[in-house]
Amino acid sequence: MRRFLLPVLLVCSITASAQQLENDSLKLRQLATEVLTHSKAYEQLRVLTKQVGGRLAGSPQMAKAEQWGVKALKESGADTVYLQACQVPHWVRGAKEEVRIISRRRDFIPPLQVLALGNSVGSVPAGITAPVLEVSSFEELEAKKDQVKGKIVFYNYPFNPAFIHTFDSYGDAVRYRGRGASRAAKYGAVAIMIRSMTHGANNFPHTGAMAYNDSFPKIPAVALGLEDADLLSNRLKDESDLKIYLRTSCRMLPDTIGHNVIAEIKGTEHPEQIITVGGHLDSWDVNEGAHDDGTGCVQSIEILRAFKALGIRPKHTLRIVLFANEENGSRGGKKYAEVAKAANEQHIFALESDAGGFTPRGFSFTMPQEKREKIKSWAPLFLPYDVYDFSSEGGGVDVGELHEATGVAMGELLPDSQRYFDLHHAVNDVFSAVNKRELELGAFSMAALIYLVDKYGL
Amino acid sequence: MRRFLLPVLLVCSITASAQQLENDSLKLRQLATEVLTHSKAYEQLRVLTKQVGGRLAGSPQMAKAEQWGVKALKESGADTVYLQACQVPHWVRGAKEEVRIISRRRDFIPPLQVLALGNSVGSVPAGITAPVLEVSSFEELEAKKDQVKGKIVFYNYPFNPAFIHTFDSYGDAVRYRGRGASRAAKYGAVAIMIRSMTHGANNFPHTGAMAYNDSFPKIPAVALGLEDADLLSNRLKDESDLKIYLRTSCRMLPDTIGHNVIAEIKGTEHPEQIITVGGHLDSWDVNEGAHDDGTGCVQSIEILRAFKALGIRPKHTLRIVLFANEENGSRGGKKYAEVAKAANEQHIFALESDAGGFTPRGFSFTMPQEKREKIKSWAPLFLPYDVYDFSSEGGGVDVGELHEATGVAMGELLPDSQRYFDLHHAVNDVFSAVNKRELELGAFSMAALIYLVDKYGL
Repeated sequence: MRRFLLPVLLVCSITASAQQLENDSLKLRQLATEVLTHSKAYEQLRVLTKQVGGRLAGSPQMAKAEQWGVKALKESGADTVYLQACQVPHWVRGAKEEVRIISRRRDFIPPLQVLALGNSVGSVPAGITAPVLEVSSFEELEAKKDQVKGKIVFYNYPFNPAFIHTFDSYGDAVRYRGRGASRAAKYGAVAIMIRSMTHGANNFPHTGAMAYNDSFPKIPAVALGLEDADLLSNRLKDESDLKIYLRTSCRMLPDTIGHNVIAEIKGTEHPEQIITVGGHLDSWDVNEGAHDDGTGCVQSIEILRAFKALGIRPKHTLRIVLFANEENGSRGGKKYAEVAKAANEQHIFALESDAGGFTPRGFSFTMPQEKREKIKSWAPLFLPYDVYDFSSEGGGVDVGELHEATGVAMGELLPDSQRYFDLHHAVNDVFSAVNKRELELGAFSMAALIYLVDKYGL
Repeated sequence: MRRFLLPVLLVCSITASAQQLENDSLKLRQLATEVLTHSKAYEQLRVLTKQVGGRLAGSPQMAKAEQWGVKALKESGADTVYLQACQVPHWVRGAKEEVRIISRRRDFIPPLQVLALGNSVGSVPAGITAPVLEVSSFEELEAKKDQVKGKIVFYNYPFNPAFIHTFDSYGDAVRYRGRGASRAAKYGAVAIMIRSMTHGANNFPHTGAMAYNDSFPKIPAVALGLEDADLLSNRLKDESDLKIYLRTSCRMLPDTIGHNVIAEIKGTEHPEQIITVGGHLDSWDVNEGAHDDGTGCVQSIEILRAFKALGIRPKHTLRIVLFANEENGSRGGKKYAEVAKAANEQHIFALESDAGGFTPRGFSFTMPQEKREKIKSWAPLFLPYDVYDFSSEGGGVDVGELHEATGVAMGELLPDSQRYFDLHHAVNDVFSAVNKRELELGAFSMAALIYLVDKYGL
């Protein structure tokens, strides 16, 4: 009989696996129908964006957003909801920035559309007036370092349209925002301006975090809208000695207290093993923080609601975390990781949504190959939902801190990226830029992945 | 030696094929860079939508659109551009529709947001006043057929959000628009109203073609915005004998002449074998015809421009066709097919873009399995561009006529469908709803497919 044993076992195993595949396929279909017909995510996002609005760490709106988060998580069926306090940076923009071209020609040029970069210092109260040195790269800055002293350096580095994934264009250009000020201050620059990180077809400036190198003077830093960056560049061709008047009123106040908002459903079989899902609750001050990252918050909350509605009780403990501060400090993720590590918590997976609430295409992961292969084996279940990409490397900034501290396997929802940098960190990141179905399909994809990770482990 | 022959040949073949794969991969990358950095598609679309605007067959705007098409095709490097005359329907909307709830309560209710359905007849000039019978389906209509006489039938069939692909929701609901009038007229209805084919979060009504069954009286037909459909339905719950005042001024005039705009590059090796690519130039009258189907037209034209820019001279004859009339008659496609068949032309492939200028996901095809397998063998070349779906059945309405007449293998660009029915046939299908990069990635995908079909045949 022995030689027949293996095939018989194989048949049993194939049959069991086919049955399992069918069960999982049905469960995912139930989840999709539940989310697409009864999701609260879009309405919750409306309240967050329209009634709370922009919510930079340390702002009064951030405190309102925390209250919103507690309420939304409780209503969605969490066992417990609590706040985890953490120190957050407290940067304020102050009065509206003013940047003007001062020309010999004395013709009228409207003020340039600018936003001060997050974490940057303000100018002297009366503003700075200085000539401009335009450079297209750090290499050009180095080559012209003798001309920098006393000038405002204008980094006019284009957002490369030839990349297919816009995050690659961002990764390519963002160094001028992050490190441009100190690189220029090293040679005596008095301020910097950067071309906004976008290929959007409008003139909205895009803010974002920068950091100073403490070895050099801290100088003001602003981002220009694309049309004004072109206008200035063209103007400089004809009139290289024009001056810029620049006044910013932003400043960094002492750290203050913010909170990660955390909800939990206790696991039925492995309560000590934790799956974390989240987005960050803070946003820039100039917009409604819709795609960045209101959508990630409401998608995470929707997983709770959908599980509850379908009677899915996870075997592992499921934590939804709305992180207190990502934009200008990552302090929310750092605190969560620190507490998890200190308590020696057992984390099996951490998932984030912080790449926009656009139509989903897959997930990026950072995890050992065998775990990725396990997830990839579920790919056929996702294909009917146009979710097919499980190959990219990645993971959100917030859960990245937990990964760093504990080595936990992490992932991030991978939405279509084409529209993200049209509105990222700009005034037009508002509720009306979010499509209800795209948001919901992202929430469903996350719920489906968490369902499978919980069912089969990782 | 014989037993070594096969492996050696295999190795040669694998090497050749690896080399070929690399060449093709480089060529696609060149095409992508060319389109993403130098495309004229977005600017051409701006001119078409903003300077020509809505362009229903038979309208003066349609003649302007043909001139736009000739110019754009010539500038993009066609060998020849010519017009192919065809009879087109000539339906006009006339004065703005008016539909009001007339209630015993005499409270103020704003006029309902409606659009007459394309091809429908107008009401008597003074308008119709009649009670309403709401039904959710044809089944309910049949069950209530004795109550239909003298009433306005209101088909309140929801656009099902549980379908993942919105074209499935459309396919499910569109029968009420297409055949609802005659189905109700059969039992004595005096007009019909339908719930618009959308799950958009606004009150814009969505028009679209309908057809009468000549056995029954022709009655007016309008589409209601979603909020007004709900308002009416709720109102009917409390006041089932309310009346509707309905006035439409549309009418069908005698057929007139329109033109397919056709551009050609003669093939270098097989000039007698034709590859057709196109979109339809006509649109509804109430919007700018941006996604439907300005994007399909400019994407098709962009293939010519990109080939020219990269010095790609196709082996087969490449025809770009801007079809004269799809929306309310498919006469453009019919004429093109009729002429092709009469001339016994040899067509090898016909591709259309008529599902919106959204981020591409793949192509649908109607062709024998071995041809589909050939195309699927190119799939790895498309994956870096997030184009992965080659499995769906489909093909555009316009090239569908050629397929019907000649059996030619056909395909259609498959963009993400989530946002399409937010604006399809409604006032908000305008230029600003099109994302430049999404449009360009669609154009690139089409250019890449045509490049490969031309290189390897089909």
